[in-house]
Amino acid sequence: MSPGSLTVIGLGPGDPRYLTPAAAAALAAAQDLVGYAPYLARVPERPGLVRHASDNRVEVERARHALALAAAGRRVAVVSGGDPGVFAMAAAVFEALEAGDPAWRRLAVTVEPGITAMLAAAARAGAPLGGDFCALSLSDNLKPWDVITARLAAVLAADLVVALYNPISRARPWQLGAALDLAARHRGPETPVILARAVGRPDEALRVLALREARRAEADMATLVIVGASTTRLIPREGAAPFVYTPRSVAPAAEAAR
Amino acid sequence: MSPGSLTVIGLGPGDPRYLTPAAAAALAAAQDLVGYAPYLARVPERPGLVRHASDNRVEVERARHALALAAAGRRVAVVSGGDPGVFAMAAAVFEALEAGDPAWRRLAVTVEPGITAMLAAAARAGAPLGGDFCALSLSDNLKPWDVITARLAAVLAADLVVALYNPISRARPWQLGAALDLAARHRGPETPVILARAVGRPDEALRVLALREARRAEADMATLVIVGASTTRLIPREGAAPFVYTPRSVAPAAEAAR
Repeated sequence: MSPGSLTVIGLGPGDPRYLTPAAAAALAAAQDLVGYAPYLARVPERPGLVRHASDNRVEVERARHALALAAAGRRVAVVSGGDPGVFAMAAAVFEALEAGDPAWRRLAVTVEPGITAMLAAAARAGAPLGGDFCALSLSDNLKPWDVITARLAAVLAADLVVALYNPISRARPWQLGAALDLAARHRGPETPVILARAVGRPDEALRVLALREARRAEADMATLVIVGASTTRLIPREGAAPFVYTPRSVAPAAEAAR
Repeated sequence: MSPGSLTVIGLGPGDPRYLTPAAAAALAAAQDLVGYAPYLARVPERPGLVRHASDNRVEVERARHALALAAAGRRVAVVSGGDPGVFAMAAAVFEALEAGDPAWRRLAVTVEPGITAMLAAAARAGAPLGGDFCALSLSDNLKPWDVITARLAAVLAADLVVALYNPISRARPWQLGAALDLAARHRGPETPVILARAVGRPDEALRVLALREARRAEADMATLVIVGASTTRLIPREGAAPFVYTPRSVAPAAEAAR
């Protein structure tokens, strides 16, 4: 039996033009594809490629299945949107690996990075992540809401740009509003907020709003939200959306005045 | 005169296998390449491609030059390693654009995202960014050191994974040590620290150390440092480096005990 392998692959934001050649090569080498059905649908069919589609929110079961296939000698690819290491499948695979059959530790397990949503959204808007920034998941499925708000308050007080993943879902309808209310206690009402939906896909929509307006904006599971720092700026343009960027510099005086 | 354009392109970590097709297409369409000399050297020569290499730490001058070329009708590509929006050229371009000729606001300016160093380093190590995380630049060339330490203390107290860009240079030899000392006041001595040097390049070197050992490790300008959260774990393996990952979950009890 040939030794099996498992690669966790980042497909990027959706457009194949953002799929790295390394990720494409790993997909081409795979015998089994494991992942959430909408991500699997992005990978073209070919003879001999076996697909194992699963629902959302069964990440560890999906990871165990992938590891078992690899242990049986298959070349397995677990696919994620964006980067697999950012609120996606890579951590689930290592959770399953650590808790599972000790033999799984001898498998060749690799991760292929991808363009994560905040990088794609930032590129579309300008350079909003130009200073220090953080990425927080607003989902309280896996951590208590009070941990989320404590973290959010800390990074807002420290004046980081904040990228919010998983801002909202049908089961979590109020969390984004609560997070924006908290942001409004640390940032001025004109602070730029970017709502980037489905960047790199045909239904892409990018909105740049002032924080005071963002509270009333529509968002969904496919939306990535970026809340600017106190220094984040808009460059208005005639007949086009403004550029949004965060300068690289922080002035001592600006900091003291915060 | 044809209308000029400017694209800020992320080359990724170095290996062409991490260059996205979108970035490759933008490079192929460019007439003028502007950037720090080592990044320009990654782009193959071709007839008609004009190179404008510059030294490090002249980002805004470089950006102004690129915008002036575009305003003169050229198709200009500004190249950065990694992602251009993460501690790289995109913010400098928008700083120059805002401060410069108002006509520059009518130029077609776009940004092509890339695999930034922390994603490449994380993928090599496992999934250390599997929970909430932040990216901080340790360079005090553009912001006061007390802002850097205040931000670092805040994100450490909030138990985020911390990716440190620009950790050290000949002109800034002590900042990384000071940052690791600060980390040691918030994290246990066994907390995993990843020192990822030149990921995706022939001289790539990845080290996973305990925080208590990391203080004495060598690092340089090409190193990206990731300090784990309190929950970040190692999976030991026989005859191979351990996997490093941060579980997606935060338990209420673990948080209370922090």
